[in-house]
Amino acid sequence: PDRLSFIMESGHAYVTGNQRPDVVAEQAKLLAADAVILQFPLWWYGVPAILKGWIERVYAFGFAYGYQNGTNEFRFGDGILKGKRALVNVQAGGPGADYGPRGINAPIEQLLFPLTHGALFSPGMDVLPTHAVYSAGHVSTAEEVEAIKAGWRARLAGLFTDAPIPFRAQNGGDFPDRHTMADDVAPGQTGIVAHVAEELRFVDAVAGDAAAIASVVNGAYRANGAVEGWTNERG
Amino acid sequence: PDRLSFIMESGHAYVTGNQRPDVVAEQAKLLAADAVILQFPLWWYGVPAILKGWIERVYAFGFAYGYQNGTNEFRFGDGILKGKRALVNVQAGGPGADYGPRGINAPIEQLLFPLTHGALFSPGMDVLPTHAVYSAGHVSTAEEVEAIKAGWRARLAGLFTDAPIPFRAQNGGDFPDRHTMADDVAPGQTGIVAHVAEELRFVDAVAGDAAAIASVVNGAYRANGAVEGWTNERG
Repeated sequence: PDRLSFIMESGHAYVTGNQRPDVVAEQAKLLAADAVILQFPLWWYGVPAILKGWIERVYAFGFAYGYQNGTNEFRFGDGILKGKRALVNVQAGGPGADYGPRGINAPIEQLLFPLTHGALFSPGMDVLPTHAVYSAGHVSTAEEVEAIKAGWRARLAGLFTDAPIPFRAQNGGDFPDRHTMADDVAPGQTGIVAHVAEELRFVDAVAGDAAAIASVVNGAYRANGAVEGWTNERG
Repeated sequence: PDRLSFIMESGHAYVTGNQRPDVVAEQAKLLAADAVILQFPLWWYGVPAILKGWIERVYAFGFAYGYQNGTNEFRFGDGILKGKRALVNVQAGGPGADYGPRGINAPIEQLLFPLTHGALFSPGMDVLPTHAVYSAGHVSTAEEVEAIKAGWRARLAGLFTDAPIPFRAQNGGDFPDRHTMADDVAPGQTGIVAHVAEELRFVDAVAGDAAAIASVVNGAYRANGAVEGWTNERG
């Protein structure tokens, strides 16, 4: 080629068996999995660099994008990981209030949209609502630790039964030209919130200590079907 | 200490002069700068891992957070980089339509909010609207390249005069308890859009080839004061 394209080189290595063995091994793990869980501390409002780098290296062209024919035909709901489930478990140093609907950091699901929608839903996985533990740096008592563990166990129990975030699939009718939402889809809405198909509301109570939050968030999520962090509410 | 805290260790290294020399050098560059420009390709809807890692290593505790007293008193508009300007220049492979108000990827300013708000505004910088070049992988003619260069030169010309994104400062009155927006601020709004203080609307025309987009976006931005990617419009 007369022009270097990282995308084309990635695809070439993928189809010709010239990827590094560690990348091949990680791709094999993804293909073998029924569910993929990403657990990490929130660093500067996103995934740590080391995890971002894992995505960049493992998500080869032809594998996680350009699937089957080198185009964007299969993405956002379709793709090589279709049928698998994904769950993010994030620990944030700040209190839940900072990540609330009107919190100073913005809601965790909107901050992590590039990960949940852009990196997990895009190659086809069904992505569950994010599991977040707040004030993680201030957890100190055994009771708090036990509450956090119980909250996580509850999420694991629902790994294959909880409803995923209802992101709009590219090929489900909402994006007739694969680029822009049809006019009759989420009419009048723009941005990230328009990407969630159902009317979702925030759990009201997101303030308090980490253990209480873990309990409240998961309790509310499981009891009411409400999903903390998302809203389509329009004033 | 009887418990390992990366935050405390970062702060300890910072105040005792035990940071690695490369980190010290990067911090010195930030302190010496009048403006900070981050230029990168959009990888999986965010900054490449290598740039994220730069932020994580250079943004020591006591420097970019916990400034002055180890608390969150000085952040989001206040901080060690207050008075400096920041500008993001991002190249995206996908067409502008995918990043439009109702595009399948979501608007670029919302995808990059964790960077612009979370990593640039939080230690005090004034962040200009993102400069984006779309369909970057398909740029092929000299005319397209020249149009892209002209668009970028225009943004550089406004580096110290263009209006920054009107993010809400923590200590400007909108967050009385430093965590949650006051009820009378952006009433009824939630999430990322509530963080922008003024009524901003998308530039309508974001479709087309990269050169046309670079031209349209910058032309519209400079001519109308409109900012591509943001909206507070409520249907």
